[in-house]
Amino acid sequence: MPGRATVRDIAAETGVSIATVSRVLNQQGNVAPATRELVERAVERLGVRAPNPRGGSPKPVGGAVYLRCPYVLTDYFGLIVSSIAETLDRHGRRLVLNAGEATQHDQVLTKLPAQRDLAGAILILPPETSDELIQLRARRFPFVVVDPRTPLPRDIAAVSAAHFAGARQVTAHLLSLGHTRIGVIGGPSEWLASDARLGGHAAALADAGILPDPTLVRPIQPTTEHGHRAAAQLLDLPDRPTALIAFNDKAAVGALQAAATRGLSVPHDLSIAGFDDIDISRSTTPALTTVRQPLQEMGRMAVSLLTRLLDRHELEALHVELATELVIRNSTAPPR
Amino acid sequence: MPGRATVRDIAAETGVSIATVSRVLNQQGNVAPATRELVERAVERLGVRAPNPRGGSPKPVGGAVYLRCPYVLTDYFGLIVSSIAETLDRHGRRLVLNAGEATQHDQVLTKLPAQRDLAGAILILPPETSDELIQLRARRFPFVVVDPRTPLPRDIAAVSAAHFAGARQVTAHLLSLGHTRIGVIGGPSEWLASDARLGGHAAALADAGILPDPTLVRPIQPTTEHGHRAAAQLLDLPDRPTALIAFNDKAAVGALQAAATRGLSVPHDLSIAGFDDIDISRSTTPALTTVRQPLQEMGRMAVSLLTRLLDRHELEALHVELATELVIRNSTAPPR
Repeated sequence: MPGRATVRDIAAETGVSIATVSRVLNQQGNVAPATRELVERAVERLGVRAPNPRGGSPKPVGGAVYLRCPYVLTDYFGLIVSSIAETLDRHGRRLVLNAGEATQHDQVLTKLPAQRDLAGAILILPPETSDELIQLRARRFPFVVVDPRTPLPRDIAAVSAAHFAGARQVTAHLLSLGHTRIGVIGGPSEWLASDARLGGHAAALADAGILPDPTLVRPIQPTTEHGHRAAAQLLDLPDRPTALIAFNDKAAVGALQAAATRGLSVPHDLSIAGFDDIDISRSTTPALTTVRQPLQEMGRMAVSLLTRLLDRHELEALHVELATELVIRNSTAPPR
Repeated sequence: MPGRATVRDIAAETGVSIATVSRVLNQQGNVAPATRELVERAVERLGVRAPNPRGGSPKPVGGAVYLRCPYVLTDYFGLIVSSIAETLDRHGRRLVLNAGEATQHDQVLTKLPAQRDLAGAILILPPETSDELIQLRARRFPFVVVDPRTPLPRDIAAVSAAHFAGARQVTAHLLSLGHTRIGVIGGPSEWLASDARLGGHAAALADAGILPDPTLVRPIQPTTEHGHRAAAQLLDLPDRPTALIAFNDKAAVGALQAAATRGLSVPHDLSIAGFDDIDISRSTTPALTTVRQPLQEMGRMAVSLLTRLLDRHELEALHVELATELVIRNSTAPPR
């Protein structure tokens, strides 16, 4: 297919950097003659998309995509947003960003369909109710939800990590080490993910013939501070758990701090596991056992689903769950 | 000034949440009568801006702002981007985002002035050369650079942290503890910030009558992996340093790992300091002494400078440096 290759394809084909390919295409200097010839021959052979005298990304080919992520773009949300931005760029679509905690209570959804230059939207962990999302769907505005907070009808496209399977795996790991009293620092009780995680936990316990003990579960806002407080409560129980599972790595860091304050050595006196596998999980001592969420793939999948909605393709399964992966590091060990 | 208050102002005035104020303004249910009356009285007294039957952010009042941050939005870049997004939202301007490492070599700047709906741009740590930025300025397209990588002429607006002063402070801190052999895990040698940091280090050393020892300086790409490698080289010197200063917190985490591998206890056998004060610096054991960069304020200042450029106000000092702050935690102590 002549004329279909991108600058990136030419770079991959020739083994030359993208910057150099751009320089050749833009007829700029500073390229060795042999390299220039190599690139030019590849361009001749493959064609190049959207011949643009100034090089760079292809021109926007359709309406913009509105991305709402009303949170601080930390290592968690920021990775999803970066991946969506890169993927949209590759699709030649413009990204309009709505982000930051201050935008959390703005009612922006109802205004989206009226904005003619928007082709669709991606909503990350939307604070809006299911009803508000259903109303947006009823107005035939195409959108995809990443990490839905509340249950959604089947005809709203959604991408999330396999919370149930991930939580089941980490509890099974602790059980296999010999733990039977496992404390859970869970997510906010109204979140879908929190419920799925508790379900995975209960399923793993059931495999070992154990029923969940409600006194060992503490739902929190998933921050280091709240994780610290919940861990402190669990560790101060008369018959304290020998292992703690936190809703995310940040809460697990709080649990590590609560253990240190009490003179408990991790993993010898207490095992601690997180969820997410963000950078922080490799910075603690000991490094955290955690469940990896495929954040970048979640971003790519969201763009892919939205593109299919925009192309009016049929989507067979509108709710996509992406596999998580248990990453065993040094914060979990057999109980004393 | 009637009609000037925002939903946020009304919330602050009444002590009611933003979501509730929105609900009252939108005549939605679920608000206690007393609360509704409180809000309505405040609205009557203060007026409310852009009465919008659907509530939420004000309508876009001018051209969009293009934000280029060709990096993964981690705890560092993500915080700047979140702050810019929130601030633009408050100004009623739309944000068009270009982010992710894959966009690093795209030549997008030359195309910006032709995009009629863009009012201006904010460029974070632009990978482009000074010449390319000067060419953009020559085309009278308004833009602000956050954290410039290369020297810029005075008429290009730029915001950065006070790298020189921050670095000087952290070295002075280590000197005051009694360290005289201080290893530096520096940033990429072609970055402005790297040079300013080394300058600050040299200035503090000079105050103590010490000249910098070039064998104690290792320039790196600021990641945990490279930090680990550089620290290993410094710690394996015959006469090893008693303290290490890393270009950022991630590199400092690598240094902590290199120390642990060698059986060196931090801070007793070795002091380590970082830079940035991102979340990770509070998750390590010991917690990192570091220099706080005002990331959110950098974002707000960038929007403020751009707004002034767009309003054709005079900018007196186009290069703005924001103060850093030394945060002393547990990774630094007197040498043995």
